[in-house]
Amino acid sequence: MEKPQIGIVMGSASDRSIMEEAGEILKRFKIPYEMTVASAHRSPERTKEYARTAHKRGLKVIIAGAGGAAHLAGAIAAETVLPVIGVPIDSSPFKGIDALLATVQMPGGVPVATVAVGKTGAKNAGILAVEILALGQPELHKRLEEYRGEMARHVEEAAKDLSKG
Amino acid sequence: MEKPQIGIVMGSASDRSIMEEAGEILKRFKIPYEMTVASAHRSPERTKEYARTAHKRGLKVIIAGAGGAAHLAGAIAAETVLPVIGVPIDSSPFKGIDALLATVQMPGGVPVATVAVGKTGAKNAGILAVEILALGQPELHKRLEEYRGEMARHVEEAAKDLSKG
Amino acid sequence: MEKPQIGIVMGSASDRSIMEEAGEILKRFKIPYEMTVASAHRSPERTKEYARTAHKRGLKVIIAGAGGAAHLAGAIAAETVLPVIGVPIDSSPFKGIDALLATVQMPGGVPVATVAVGKTGAKNAGILAVEILALGQPELHKRLEEYRGEMARHVEEAAKDLSKG
Amino acid sequence: MEKPQIGIVMGSASDRSIMEEAGEILKRFKIPYEMTVASAHRSPERTKEYARTAHKRGLKVIIAGAGGAAHLAGAIAAETVLPVIGVPIDSSPFKGIDALLATVQMPGGVPVATVAVGKTGAKNAGILAVEILALGQPELHKRLEEYRGEMARHVEEAAKDLSKG
Amino acid sequence: MEKPQIGIVMGSASDRSIMEEAGEILKRFKIPYEMTVASAHRSPERTKEYARTAHKRGLKVIIAGAGGAAHLAGAIAAETVLPVIGVPIDSSPFKGIDALLATVQMPGGVPVATVAVGKTGAKNAGILAVEILALGQPELHKRLEEYRGEMARHVEEAAKDLSKG
Amino acid sequence: MEKPQIGIVMGSASDRSIMEEAGEILKRFKIPYEMTVASAHRSPERTKEYARTAHKRGLKVIIAGAGGAAHLAGAIAAETVLPVIGVPIDSSPFKGIDALLATVQMPGGVPVATVAVGKTGAKNAGILAVEILALGQPELHKRLEEYRGEMARHVEEAAKDLSKG
Amino acid sequence: MEKPQIGIVMGSASDRSIMEEAGEILKRFKIPYEMTVASAHRSPERTKEYARTAHKRGLKVIIAGAGGAAHLAGAIAAETVLPVIGVPIDSSPFKGIDALLATVQMPGGVPVATVAVGKTGAKNAGILAVEILALGQPELHKRLEEYRGEMARHVEEAAKDLSKG
Amino acid sequence: MEKPQIGIVMGSASDRSIMEEAGEILKRFKIPYEMTVASAHRSPERTKEYARTAHKRGLKVIIAGAGGAAHLAGAIAAETVLPVIGVPIDSSPFKGIDALLATVQMPGGVPVATVAVGKTGAKNAGILAVEILALGQPELHKRLEEYRGEMARHVEEAAKDLSKG
Repeated sequence: MEKPQIGIVMGSASDRSIMEEAGEILKRFKIPYEMTVASAHRSPERTKEYARTAHKRGLKVIIAGAGGAAHLAGAIAAETVLPVIGVPIDSSPFKGIDALLATVQMPGGVPVATVAVGKTGAKNAGILAVEILALGQPELHKRLEEYRGEMARHVEEAAKDLSKG
Repeated sequence: MEKPQIGIVMGSASDRSIMEEAGEILKRFKIPYEMTVASAHRSPERTKEYARTAHKRGLKVIIAGAGGAAHLAGAIAAETVLPVIGVPIDSSPFKGIDALLATVQMPGGVPVATVAVGKTGAKNAGILAVEILALGQPELHKRLEEYRGEMARHVEEAAKDLSKG
Repeated sequence: MEKPQIGIVMGSASDRSIMEEAGEILKRFKIPYEMTVASAHRSPERTKEYARTAHKRGLKVIIAGAGGAAHLAGAIAAETVLPVIGVPIDSSPFKGIDALLATVQMPGGVPVATVAVGKTGAKNAGILAVEILALGQPELHKRLEEYRGEMARHVEEAAKDLSKG
Repeated sequence: MEKPQIGIVMGSASDRSIMEEAGEILKRFKIPYEMTVASAHRSPERTKEYARTAHKRGLKVIIAGAGGAAHLAGAIAAETVLPVIGVPIDSSPFKGIDALLATVQMPGGVPVATVAVGKTGAKNAGILAVEILALGQPELHKRLEEYRGEMARHVEEAAKDLSKG
Repeated sequence: MEKPQIGIVMGSASDRSIMEEAGEILKRFKIPYEMTVASAHRSPERTKEYARTAHKRGLKVIIAGAGGAAHLAGAIAAETVLPVIGVPIDSSPFKGIDALLATVQMPGGVPVATVAVGKTGAKNAGILAVEILALGQPELHKRLEEYRGEMARHVEEAAKDLSKG
Repeated sequence: MEKPQIGIVMGSASDRSIMEEAGEILKRFKIPYEMTVASAHRSPERTKEYARTAHKRGLKVIIAGAGGAAHLAGAIAAETVLPVIGVPIDSSPFKGIDALLATVQMPGGVPVATVAVGKTGAKNAGILAVEILALGQPELHKRLEEYRGEMARHVEEAAKDLSKG
Repeated sequence: MEKPQIGIVMGSASDRSIMEEAGEILKRFKIPYEMTVASAHRSPERTKEYARTAHKRGLKVIIAGAGGAAHLAGAIAAETVLPVIGVPIDSSPFKGIDALLATVQMPGGVPVATVAVGKTGAKNAGILAVEILALGQPELHKRLEEYRGEMARHVEEAAKDLSKG
Repeated sequence: MEKPQIGIVMGSASDRSIMEEAGEILKRFKIPYEMTVASAHRSPERTKEYARTAHKRGLKVIIAGAGGAAHLAGAIAAETVLPVIGVPIDSSPFKGIDALLATVQMPGGVPVATVAVGKTGAKNAGILAVEILALGQPELHKRLEEYRGEMARHVEEAAKDLSKG
């Protein structure tokens, strides 16, 4: 098995079905990845160690998903200079607006690349990670363009289906 | 000088004028306190050390104020079982709603005692800290009740001034 | 039966399943507590009497949960200098944002220690109460640290389960 | 001096310039009124006494203005069955959305007649009070209709001025 | 059958189950009322006629409930100087925050007495109407106080049930 | 002077500086227009008459701007089947979110074409009105395309200025 | 089959059941229309081509519905000077507030005529399109007035049903 | 002069002072960059061309800042598979919440890496771009770690200044 290039971290195992959207994308693009659980608040040491060792272990990008006062992505970003992508998860009664603001409003100096709330965001986190990796891999760049082409074709097919009623 | 019982921490020196409201209350109740700067994201190690050593250094309560994706109180709460009071600061264009949600919506297991946004909250953080200390100090309990009495009298005086026009 | 140290109050019996999360925590830490119903608006006298007699009856901390224009915690805080923890409950169409703002935005002088909305908040109210009690009980402090250790271990186990697929 | 029929209460003397808008309306309609300060949290006893004695003292309607976790109108409504009009005041960084929700989202059984945030609301609180009094005073009903007529004429004049450039 | 004193109007027949909460209260207090449908936008003439004739037909208070850009209460208030109570209804995807703001933020000169969103608000609209009528009917005032007493007793009973487990 | 084709209505003369943005656009495109004041609540009759006579007087589109519980556009739309464009104005402490929701969330059957909040919206209301008129005037369509071209050129010039530092 | 005068575009085939509300209205008024799928982000070329050719193909108005960061209507408006009506769709966890703001807050120069969120908005988009077409077709204007009359009669019937209980 | 690796694009020249924060960071890290103006709505062709040619012109990352219905970053992301960083700008009365939602809530398939609102976000966009470039440049990675070290030292110095009073 290849050494993972992307780390997917989630604040709770209950976020799994959402974060697997990121994994599906990475599988599709044949990017080796790892997936784990770490909580910024319930296991801060584990979170810190994960972030601090990420670069040495060969990770290129970390994707972190959490709900509520979603500090996971920020806590990881505070311990590594690898790009960190944050996925706000809509698991509280506030439907993810809390997770979005807690993820995106980072202070100057420590960015988190925030994507949409929930499954859509997790999927896009995967694609953004591939886009970043593709900067050094022309082959990957090309496959991303093909993926875009496919999306455009799907839209056209949907349009055809619609016009048939 | 007496050993501090309360630690006031802020994410940035620019939050000072707000967090001093907490200090004013502690002075008034003659509670020794310390005040420092630590950022959950720009100096995570310092933040962790502060939180981890707090209990041994004799602190009883930590008051933490931050704006934006305000993780400071949560990051400290993740590293100590002392009560942590969070003051959301309205320093971003979102006027503190980001800081409030990032402070209060903590996951199960790691509470942050959140107070109002801004100066009012900082003042109340000081009073809440005194209320907590007062559980073991009947004299302090009494002074808190006197403080309440004073507040009520101020309201009455304001009412008199108003009726005089 | 031991004298209760913590009072759990809710604005309506329909909030019971949420507020019992606080009770579960107190049971776990073997803190004697009482649980009752009092409404800031429908039974203000009862609420006031509960708050005013709390200190004499030996209560150390009051946990108050309510939804909508959630005044219960504030109404209690206005009548006692014991620490009051507020749990905003998401029982209105506004999903608890009304209860959060009505609980946390207290005026200078009368703090309410506000926690997260709903069940998570009720659980954390219980833990915050234990943290406050633990200031005078080293044994309780130790048990809280053990509880934290357990949480961290649970996260690690969840991570192991995840890696097994 | 005539016995006041309307009581205007504000949570803080700093709300005075806003609440005087209600007073201006009452003066215009020659309704005797009183204006005072009472805080639901800093002087709960005073607030309760004010509300409980209101009916006996001849008050017909109470207008209460407060900001933040604006409990004043609700606390008064809990102690009297007179109509209580709540004016949310935009004195916190949240620009009055906290005060609006804390005032309007009252539980079943204890209504607060809530008006707009700030000066506009205070003015309308005065008019609403007059509308309520007018139910028993046909003369007042007529003057309200005249006031409406005047407003309509002012709009027409403004339109004329506008058309003149 | 007695002449109705209160008019309950709703913007759509689909709001009926909510607005009947107001009717239930009026029945309980034996206040004759009428209930009808009128839309500020789909039947403006009907709405205007309803409002304009209300006073002559003997109505004392109008309760208007609507969702979305909830103009019904305001449109009625623009055509009568009777007190108008607005009930924001949570029938759009925005869960009633649109209806609340569209109902409560009336311009200076034309107040709407706004109550809570949804069923709770409709019930309280009924009680507020009774409170207004009670100003001229001491017997009604007394019954309102009894109702309050009953509410307080219900809270006490709920507390007893809770303590029994 | 030519007969006005567009009516610009504002809820208050104080909205003038905002609504003139619409007028500037109409002048630029040489569309004759009229500008007036009418309040949905303070002068409902005037508002209704304005809307009802609009079609006969030769108006093609009505632009209505108002703040707070902004009913003006909706009230006009209820009385005419001409296209009505609503401009939410940020004149209340809620910064126009109230005006936006009160304008856009119209019930099924009575649309208001809502544009952005404030001056930007007023300007765009003017352009939208021209776009509508242009459907029957090819010359106007062409001028709109030229206007677009000019905008694109301005962006290019701004880009050049920027690159020069 | 007649040449379509209105184009209904949606960002995803999953928005179909919502956007068909617009189609139902157009059918009722016998306006020929077309319905298709085009995504501002997944098929930008298709979107641009659709917009650019719309005028030549005889379209008069474009109705565009999308959810989330709903750019579809704006992307189309950027490429045509035909009137573009935007329907915000509540398909994200934020219930359409994201789609509303992303649709309505267009920059100066490029308006989108925004209607209510979801099905109600789609229906009103259809009616608004008819209102625009009716400017050049007196017969259509008349049918719109009849439609309004029908709506008013439905309200009256609903009122009758209600009064029968 | 070196070939730019990062493109900074803004929707309007008035966003310059904000977007220069990104430029300052790139200068500090000696990353050649270009800065230009392109509007998704007022100059869509220019925006598309910029995005489509970016990869060939040697750009690695695009930073796009815009306010209101901020489509710029999304429009660029739709035309390139380079990583696109979006900076929401608080230039409308809604203080950037519109720009945040319009930037971050992208549909599945086309991510925008969103950072905080305003100047803080622009600065962090610069740092995130450097983090991405650093994946292929170990020297840059090291300088980022030094930058982090510096930030931590600044916090310590601020703490020392604070303790001196």
